[in-house]
Amino acid sequence: MKYKDSGVDIDAASRALARAKEAIRSTWGDAVASDVGHFGGLFRRPDGGFLVSSIDGVGTKLKVALAAGRVDGVGADLVNHCVDDILVQGAEPLFFLDYFAAGRLDGEVFVAVVEGMARACRENGCALIGGETAEMPGIYHGDDFDLAGCIVGEVRPEGLITGEGIRPGMEVWGWPSTGLHTNGYSLARRVLLEGEAALPLHEALEELEGRTLAEALLAVHRSYLARVRALRRQTTVHGLCHLTGGGFVDNLPRVLPPGTAAVIDAAAWEVPPIFSLIARRGRVDVEEMRRVYNLGIGMVVFLEAGLDSSVEGLDDAHRIGAVVERDGGPAVRFENRHRGLG
Amino acid sequence: MKYKDSGVDIDAASRALARAKEAIRSTWGDAVASDVGHFGGLFRRPDGGFLVSSIDGVGTKLKVALAAGRVDGVGADLVNHCVDDILVQGAEPLFFLDYFAAGRLDGEVFVAVVEGMARACRENGCALIGGETAEMPGIYHGDDFDLAGCIVGEVRPEGLITGEGIRPGMEVWGWPSTGLHTNGYSLARRVLLEGEAALPLHEALEELEGRTLAEALLAVHRSYLARVRALRRQTTVHGLCHLTGGGFVDNLPRVLPPGTAAVIDAAAWEVPPIFSLIARRGRVDVEEMRRVYNLGIGMVVFLEAGLDSSVEGLDDAHRIGAVVERDGGPAVRFENRHRGLG
Repeated sequence: MKYKDSGVDIDAASRALARAKEAIRSTWGDAVASDVGHFGGLFRRPDGGFLVSSIDGVGTKLKVALAAGRVDGVGADLVNHCVDDILVQGAEPLFFLDYFAAGRLDGEVFVAVVEGMARACRENGCALIGGETAEMPGIYHGDDFDLAGCIVGEVRPEGLITGEGIRPGMEVWGWPSTGLHTNGYSLARRVLLEGEAALPLHEALEELEGRTLAEALLAVHRSYLARVRALRRQTTVHGLCHLTGGGFVDNLPRVLPPGTAAVIDAAAWEVPPIFSLIARRGRVDVEEMRRVYNLGIGMVVFLEAGLDSSVEGLDDAHRIGAVVERDGGPAVRFENRHRGLG
Repeated sequence: MKYKDSGVDIDAASRALARAKEAIRSTWGDAVASDVGHFGGLFRRPDGGFLVSSIDGVGTKLKVALAAGRVDGVGADLVNHCVDDILVQGAEPLFFLDYFAAGRLDGEVFVAVVEGMARACRENGCALIGGETAEMPGIYHGDDFDLAGCIVGEVRPEGLITGEGIRPGMEVWGWPSTGLHTNGYSLARRVLLEGEAALPLHEALEELEGRTLAEALLAVHRSYLARVRALRRQTTVHGLCHLTGGGFVDNLPRVLPPGTAAVIDAAAWEVPPIFSLIARRGRVDVEEMRRVYNLGIGMVVFLEAGLDSSVEGLDDAHRIGAVVERDGGPAVRFENRHRGLG
């Protein structure tokens, strides 16, 4: 099965965005220092610093949360996702705004979601400064709702992380994800939760080492802010890559400079069982899995060679590969077989 | 009919938000200078200025746009709405981000919406700096989509408009709206477009002075940025109020200081025919109309007495009332009958 079969067509979205680019660029004055396709927009301020912003949703993880009756996590998912999105440029969060839309507002659900956002905002030192609550009968049905959030952070020019300094010989490290984070849920739902072979949400599963599907699928998106802060006090972070939709294959090239490629040792970490469950039951091949899912690595960091996990911030990270000169092949190559996948 | 009957319960939303307030406030550090319930969040910067932000959607105006096959306006609706939301605090827009979610991305629709946003961003001198496009089959059905946007602007402390200086004896002026702007569409759809007595979208209607329902309902939300800029060059703007959900009744009290009330002369302007069509066909009483709709006034401004429409920025504005001492009655009182309503 392909991701497309679950109703999500990444290529179509990319094509539509490409068509809209010209209109988008026409709005940019001198203050805009970033390009469409970067993780977050850079806006230059008179004091020389940059405001970095990003907007996102949590996708159909919402449907799983609703089905499992456990919506408190999605607020934190959204905040942490946004924090990670601007962190890749070196930005510290300032404030966050949320958009909550439903057919009819369920006060319990709404309060649970907002409390989850507030908790994650506190943990990341980010003010939850505004929000909009929309009731839209006719667009949203039953208990369905949607949730989007916008983060604004800042970075001084000397703190900006661009990936420009990534060179062959550097090492690629990865911090563990808690699971799917906020990507690939339409495929996961299709494979695991729909049709006759649907699995139960609240039973401990052997394939998940005794966890339930609800636990595995609703594990909260991790914020890497504290780890990156700690690491930057010890060494130069040359590049960061948040593994969101598009996985390794589409995201790493966004930070790798021309002439470089990343070789990822697939055996360097254990893929969490939720991914192999999806791959096996959905007959999703490994190339597709790499393009849709983070496979257990939520944030990739490019560092000078020779560091080890005794460095503060790297304690739970895996050394997952190396930067090489690009030889005309793809910008991301995998070596070895994934451990725990398939 | 009441707004509640169309499936939108403003009171329930307010109650849920009140419950979430404590969690929201717990995220605020010293930099947050605003309170929940203000139009936009104020975030203090080291240089003494404020970032002002707001997030919003266009509500079920989307459903009308989809039914009419004319989605290009909703992007501009969203941008202008957001511009007006931070304008009430005196802020100039810096940048905007959008969230577009659908079951399946329709490239034509998406590009039309983004081009509408980009056009409005250019007109308001605002950079469209980022966005998220989400495909969420299972949440959105058929051609349905949702659209949210987040704006960030700035204001120097000396440019901040708070309403604190509003005093009895000042005058209340209002700039015309183009129609419903982005509020009250669930009720309008229920009354005008659903059931056996549904009206056609694309026929010229006598009740609308020859316009079609699609034209009247999809008229683009107006940005008042240029008018406010011009006016501030001539005189002090003591308060601004963007008439969104809640209309006159809920919005004016947000800017009136304690001890003051606004007396609105309902006969001071002509209510556009779309509102009387809704009131008449839905048997919506005037109190409910005032609480849901802008009734033809999109932005209210509080000014010293004695100005007239020869002042730049006020050329198309109406003098609609006066500020008085509050005598224990409501903060907003109406005098006379609305012209053109009912």
